[in-house]
Amino acid sequence: MEGAVGRNGIAAEPAGMAKYLGDWAGDYRGEALAVLRPGSVGEVQALMRLCNELGVGVIPQGGNTGLVSGSIDSKGGGLVVLSLERLNAIRQIDAGNFTLQADAGCVLQTIKDACEAQDCLFPLALGAQGSCQIGGNAATNAGGVNVLRYGMARDLILGLEVVLADGELWNGFSGLRKNNSGYDLKQLFIGSEGTLGVITGVEVKLFPKPARTETAYLGLASFEAAVALFNQARRDCSDLISAFEIIGAECVELARLIDPAMRAPVAAPVHVLIELSSSAAIDLNSLLAGLLGGAMENGLVTDAVLAASTTQARSFWAIREGLVEGQAKRGYHVRTDLSVRISDIPGLIERARRFVANDHPGWIPLAYGHAGDGNIHFNVLPPLGLAEHEARARGAEVITGLYEIAVGLGGSISAEHGIGRSRRKEFWAGLSPTHRRMVAALKCALDPKGLMNPGCLLPATESVP
Amino acid sequence: MEGAVGRNGIAAEPAGMAKYLGDWAGDYRGEALAVLRPGSVGEVQALMRLCNELGVGVIPQGGNTGLVSGSIDSKGGGLVVLSLERLNAIRQIDAGNFTLQADAGCVLQTIKDACEAQDCLFPLALGAQGSCQIGGNAATNAGGVNVLRYGMARDLILGLEVVLADGELWNGFSGLRKNNSGYDLKQLFIGSEGTLGVITGVEVKLFPKPARTETAYLGLASFEAAVALFNQARRDCSDLISAFEIIGAECVELARLIDPAMRAPVAAPVHVLIELSSSAAIDLNSLLAGLLGGAMENGLVTDAVLAASTTQARSFWAIREGLVEGQAKRGYHVRTDLSVRISDIPGLIERARRFVANDHPGWIPLAYGHAGDGNIHFNVLPPLGLAEHEARARGAEVITGLYEIAVGLGGSISAEHGIGRSRRKEFWAGLSPTHRRMVAALKCALDPKGLMNPGCLLPATESVP
Repeated sequence: MEGAVGRNGIAAEPAGMAKYLGDWAGDYRGEALAVLRPGSVGEVQALMRLCNELGVGVIPQGGNTGLVSGSIDSKGGGLVVLSLERLNAIRQIDAGNFTLQADAGCVLQTIKDACEAQDCLFPLALGAQGSCQIGGNAATNAGGVNVLRYGMARDLILGLEVVLADGELWNGFSGLRKNNSGYDLKQLFIGSEGTLGVITGVEVKLFPKPARTETAYLGLASFEAAVALFNQARRDCSDLISAFEIIGAECVELARLIDPAMRAPVAAPVHVLIELSSSAAIDLNSLLAGLLGGAMENGLVTDAVLAASTTQARSFWAIREGLVEGQAKRGYHVRTDLSVRISDIPGLIERARRFVANDHPGWIPLAYGHAGDGNIHFNVLPPLGLAEHEARARGAEVITGLYEIAVGLGGSISAEHGIGRSRRKEFWAGLSPTHRRMVAALKCALDPKGLMNPGCLLPATESVP
Repeated sequence: MEGAVGRNGIAAEPAGMAKYLGDWAGDYRGEALAVLRPGSVGEVQALMRLCNELGVGVIPQGGNTGLVSGSIDSKGGGLVVLSLERLNAIRQIDAGNFTLQADAGCVLQTIKDACEAQDCLFPLALGAQGSCQIGGNAATNAGGVNVLRYGMARDLILGLEVVLADGELWNGFSGLRKNNSGYDLKQLFIGSEGTLGVITGVEVKLFPKPARTETAYLGLASFEAAVALFNQARRDCSDLISAFEIIGAECVELARLIDPAMRAPVAAPVHVLIELSSSAAIDLNSLLAGLLGGAMENGLVTDAVLAASTTQARSFWAIREGLVEGQAKRGYHVRTDLSVRISDIPGLIERARRFVANDHPGWIPLAYGHAGDGNIHFNVLPPLGLAEHEARARGAEVITGLYEIAVGLGGSISAEHGIGRSRRKEFWAGLSPTHRRMVAALKCALDPKGLMNPGCLLPATESVP
């Protein structure tokens, strides 16, 4: 393969491969025949042609920040990893058209900074934005904290450039906001987790950069109250809500593992972090104060602090971000990414908490998430002192129980993190036979030899029913 | 087939079939073996099973309001039309979750009214909303005047229920705002114009009903100024713009064919109709006045009238709606639906006008459209008195020229109306071989016998390369 990418573009020694075979969260370790690092779209095509001829499976890899083992395979000794990191240029920003084109390997933060310099916003916002790549964001249909206002990656993507399993290049860039011409092929690749082709370029929508932001941190008596408040906020704040995060009070302890001085500005069983933003000269402060005044009067909100400064707003967000980092400090823990109808959020959390208390006493449940999207990260920490291998074995049972609760409510086991390899079995088992047949038919139509990210998302082709 | 639908569900006599074989605009007449009118999803399945066994092609049909001959076939003597009109119930409105589920045959206006009664908005808004059906809206990825704010039908759809070519039922309803679980199968059917399956149910997102609206009618010196104004408006009015329509002054004459008393409130070569709306207590009037004050100062806008009442706002919209009806009164005319990058709108209109003036003197060009989406309806009226058959022959040449201009600018020949049968040749000719192969592979994966709406969107299966 050296002929196709040159000597710098290939790594086959353990030392050189290490960084491509371990995930960000430290949950998974992978194997691979080699790591390929093409430096151009032409090189990606040449490599895919070669792999297609040789019958070698390919794992496309972005920043390797996924949480479901989609870009590494612990049993992938016969596969190659194809890293897009050397394709990392911003190709074009057109501020007048509010669009941007970039190579797949461009880091999300680089794109966000470049847009900001042109007074524009690219709104995708994730914890991993300093390392994740836009191609991976597209392949996994990334979510994050601003989905409520701006949508998932799918909603932000105008076009893709993809190298198919046989090395053919599909150019799906257009720069058009509206193009209703036949099957929308890009939709297939978005969220397909590298199983249908290698995304080499991404074209996205931009927005005016917000000039004003108002943030408040609220205390509420229950998750029911949080859902009712969200519905009121949607009406009272029109389309200007950019985040509506709920945080069970128990999560704040975790944030303190990062900064012991951290204190929630309210005392209540349920916290809400709400943010409004606008590029227009709208008095967001009165808008938010109006919503909160009404909500305190009718008892939905028991305590509220409006950020008086950017510093104070940042301190609110530090709680939300700190609790995620704090969990990581606790080592192995059960991490979920459930979604239900917004009105079912209180029921989901109540059932999940009861399940943990009854079936796994001593385990510590944490409930937080993007309430406006119906997306709850219901995570569970093992009791302090439990040996990791025991925790992992029991954790698998906890996960199964939580998935059952979400599915029982008509919900999803993957609101935003995806399926990868770690959720494939549960995902596949939950599909109807018709759905499975359709997925298999699409996979077969675009990747007839089953060489694209084998084992991710759907069973390897030979075992598809 | 009577066994599958009962006697009321089938029409095979010319009189009974007539209304299903002529389109709304009067441009096309179709043929069919029979018109099937199933009364339940089970009946749709039974009919599809039967057609699949017999090898009979099926044209799924909604309100028959499309403009590209997608739901009727002039050479369709061997096909059956499957009308969804008897599947017309709203299944559920969940105002707390801001979602609605309806049968495919439910008329768009019925859905809009039901939402309004619950203080919600379903924002899809088309001229044909009194007759078009939500299943057809999904199948054609309908657009309309509020795309700028709320997106196309694709952006509003949360789930679909589809009967596949072999009669199998795929239930893709979930009610979830966020569900990142493998291939997003519904995306395949949205905009596929009935070529992959029969949509029998649609689940959509709702929004808070706007409580305030501000409308203004503006005069500008050029389309360049209109594009610059739009970019300013995006920033100055945040996400609150619900419509930004441009109207070449020449179009107003057409509106007068509907109401001779109609007068544009400004005198200028280019008109803009801008609307802001909000469910929140935001002072939209000052917001709009602020934008327009600045734009008049820097010369972008030469004349502006803010609607002082709902009646006045309606009179502005009457011009926009009247010009479309007025064109219809003129009988046959060239109708396009082009899109380009927003910054290319002035170039598109200028080239198109020059082309008509030079190559088709006497023909009357009309330019209007959804400028915020880069979508221009560049229509051309034949000279008064030209016999219709001559006009149609010459009109085909005009269309070809206009498509070339749009494509030359990297634009699309179908921003929102779709491909159907009338644009299939040009569409297919414009695709790369790789793109064609992908489309054919998908078609084959889901409709291996090529029985779904044959001849629409892509060549009949046997002729696909």
